[in-house]
Amino acid sequence: MPFIEYVGLFGAFLSAITFIPQVIHAYKTKSVGDLSWGMLWIVFTSVIVWLVYGFYLHLLPVIIANSIILVLSVVLLYFKATFKNH
Amino acid sequence: MPFIEYVGLFGAFLSAITFIPQVIHAYKTKSVGDLSWGMLWIVFTSVIVWLVYGFYLHLLPVIIANSIILVLSVVLLYFKATFKNH
Repeated sequence: MPFIEYVGLFGAFLSAITFIPQVIHAYKTKSVGDLSWGMLWIVFTSVIVWLVYGFYLHLLPVIIANSIILVLSVVLLYFKATFKNH
Repeated sequence: MPFIEYVGLFGAFLSAITFIPQVIHAYKTKSVGDLSWGMLWIVFTSVIVWLVYGFYLHLLPVIIANSIILVLSVVLLYFKATFKNH
């Protein structure tokens, strides 16, 4: 596999784990007031679009990364809806 | 251009604007305590990786989207470092 594909995989890995620290932070503090609803809904929408793209073109890294982000974005939306928004 | 490329462009557009609402929210409230440093640094790192990928393969949508996210992530890092973290 050419070198640049490893760069792409590393990018997909970083994109996939982007929201893990935010989920942990929100879970620990139970405080989500500073998180923007707009950002969370755009993330949720964009991963749906990327999943359509990934499945249509059979791009496994895109499918895996965005499936992870989908789960994390749903968790953050749930936290935003249930934790205190000070 | 095949339909699925429009889906990809739409995905890149959504990814590019993801952090705009968060930048606006942080600027209005001057409160960033609930934002995770980990997330912000991962976003910053991942866009660098994606820019290497995009420039190497001459993928304009990847270059444009990640250039926008780079600017937004630097702004959010600056806000996180300067605004109140309650």
